Amino acid sequence: MSSTEGKTITCKAAIAWGAGQELSYEDVEVAPPKAHEVRIKIHYTGVCHTDAYTLSGKDPEGAFPIILGHEGAGIVESVGEGVTNVKVGDHVVALYTPECKECKFCLSNKTNLCGKIRATQGKGLMPDGTTRFRARGQDILHFMGTSTFSQYTVVADISVVAVQPDAPMDRTCLLGCGITTGYGAARITAGVEKGSNVAVFGAGCVGLSVVQGAVAQGAGKIIVVDVNQAKEEWSTRFGATDFVNPAKLPEGKTVVDQLVEMTDGGCDYTFDCTGNVSVMRAALEACHKGWGQSIIIGVAAAGQEIATRPFQLVTGRVWKGSAFGGVKGRSQLPDLVKDYLEGRLKVDEFITHRKTLAEINDAFEVMKQGDCIRAVLDMQKA
Amino acid sequence: MSSTEGKTITCKAAIAWGAGQELSYEDVEVAPPKAHEVRIKIHYTGVCHTDAYTLSGKDPEGAFPIILGHEGAGIVESVGEGVTNVKVGDHVVALYTPECKECKFCLSNKTNLCGKIRATQGKGLMPDGTTRFRARGQDILHFMGTSTFSQYTVVADISVVAVQPDAPMDRTCLLGCGITTGYGAARITAGVEKGSNVAVFGAGCVGLSVVQGAVAQGAGKIIVVDVNQAKEEWSTRFGATDFVNPAKLPEGKTVVDQLVEMTDGGCDYTFDCTGNVSVMRAALEACHKGWGQSIIIGVAAAGQEIATRPFQLVTGRVWKGSAFGGVKGRSQLPDLVKDYLEGRLKVDEFITHRKTLAEINDAFEVMKQGDCIRAVLDMQKA
Repeated sequence: MSSTEGKTITCKAAIAWGAGQELSYEDVEVAPPKAHEVRIKIHYTGVCHTDAYTLSGKDPEGAFPIILGHEGAGIVESVGEGVTNVKVGDHVVALYTPECKECKFCLSNKTNLCGKIRATQGKGLMPDGTTRFRARGQDILHFMGTSTFSQYTVVADISVVAVQPDAPMDRTCLLGCGITTGYGAARITAGVEKGSNVAVFGAGCVGLSVVQGAVAQGAGKIIVVDVNQAKEEWSTRFGATDFVNPAKLPEGKTVVDQLVEMTDGGCDYTFDCTGNVSVMRAALEACHKGWGQSIIIGVAAAGQEIATRPFQLVTGRVWKGSAFGGVKGRSQLPDLVKDYLEGRLKVDEFITHRKTLAEINDAFEVMKQGDCIRAVLDMQKA
Repeated sequence: MSSTEGKTITCKAAIAWGAGQELSYEDVEVAPPKAHEVRIKIHYTGVCHTDAYTLSGKDPEGAFPIILGHEGAGIVESVGEGVTNVKVGDHVVALYTPECKECKFCLSNKTNLCGKIRATQGKGLMPDGTTRFRARGQDILHFMGTSTFSQYTVVADISVVAVQPDAPMDRTCLLGCGITTGYGAARITAGVEKGSNVAVFGAGCVGLSVVQGAVAQGAGKIIVVDVNQAKEEWSTRFGATDFVNPAKLPEGKTVVDQLVEMTDGGCDYTFDCTGNVSVMRAALEACHKGWGQSIIIGVAAAGQEIATRPFQLVTGRVWKGSAFGGVKGRSQLPDLVKDYLEGRLKVDEFITHRKTLAEINDAFEVMKQGDCIRAVLDMQKA
């Protein structure tokens, strides 16, 4: 039993008090876990565009005050009643896509979108409808069921998975979102086939992880599309065979024209990792007639819609999407950690910036720069 | 050898001289088939909305003068050099979706969209770039590679399949389009699973054939959606379990709300058989989160686009389409004829009107009425 078990812990967190404001590094009280909850000492967390999106106020479901963060790894500090899947001392990754193994989604082999705590998670609450965070005398909301921008957090037991303790936590934290999202989209959602031609729009953490997934599946051409020319080198490093910069095409030639030409008719699989609805359309229309599949991964701004002529679908293209790479976190995340430990999945290369929790606003700033793939926060370093 | 072999045949046809005009019943000269071509004496043909769409002038690829018609059955009168797949006297169905068994589409197990003669077929020409029809001293264009509104027509050998001679041709003609399109969409494109919930938008020939396909696959709920209340009885006759008339829903309740409620979260498979892009959107959004698939079959008007929020796809819905039900005509159409002959596929029930070729304009008129499912023309009756 740890000395803190059953007690409220006061620690540091980055609190988002309102839309568009800087995060506030300050004390937060973290209540002990209730039944089927787990309190985690967060050691490392990634900073993702989704955190910035909600902080900006553009997310229509965003509410404040809240503790953001959803790419976190740490060690279980204590568990509530009835928790059997993790124990004190386990090295864990927080899962914003939980896995209860009981609901109709979990029992389906077609999706990873567990429905059990969706309603409360969407409102920033624990499954019992309350929060475990307090600061300045107020309740603070949870984010995506994880809230990893706190030195301690409480999550539902279905929102956490124990992973191999020999995997460094500053790497495993990134498997909590972007890398898994891209790698899984290629391997699970699309099921890219050997020799097939793939195009990936957007070469951030997610897009480059799609490239890794396509390499693992034995794809033929793997074409990365990005307007930032510096991403060509990144793409090559992760296994892409070609790079297209739409800004550098001859006048009158669209990226769809270019991809159709490079693949003799269109791509077998395309992935949008930009969140831009015009790019999503181009990704669909760059697919091969008869069988090309386009997978939307990027999150579009509120109210934005995708559009195309229905003829694109009637002639055999398929439009689908992927969340968390189609990965069932509790069942499958340890496999990804294994892929990392055995050298099949690059993770270290994504970490371009390291900051402390106190420096979190700097991390949000560098994320806006093209040379930042992932900033990782050391949560326990002063 | 027939007495007409190698000679030009003068017979009756319904010629579309221009957009928006009535069809003209008059003499046409039909040249003998060239190499890899087949001349067919058409016995029966269905009249389909696609014919009316092109005649209306709304089809941007429509050109005139042309002989429309694409749901035809008849008997091979003569064959050109090198034809091996059919012979004189064979009972055949014309295929607007050919099957060459050689191109990359035919060699793929993912699509039925043969590419071999697509370019010339789209221009109303035979594969050698010329036409076999002349009237009033002018060349007349072919339509969809079939032109069944003529007592004799010439098609590419890859655009025709021999079927069982004991199947009546006034029924097999309908397997050349609508019935196969719907039945195949449920069985091949969607692969509806046992017990799954299905919604079909639009209860015409195609929609009711989707119902038949869903029944054959062992679907659970099969819900037909149509604003024409008279279609409820039709739907039940073909095996639907439920009927929803969007015009009769309580105020403020959408058809999506209704379907989601009836299926406890959404349909596993939905099919648009209307060609209306708003209906296509509703069909997608009525799908179950995580796995629901929506299949577009209807042909939208030129320039129309489908739209939705990308979130619909990211949360697991799949948007796809189907042409000719995904059926590879030469390989698979005889199986559908067998299903018909053995009582598993209803065809007779679709024939609500019978006309002669001379009465074709009446057939186009009755098609606009709600009580017409299919009008079949007896092509050889005076």
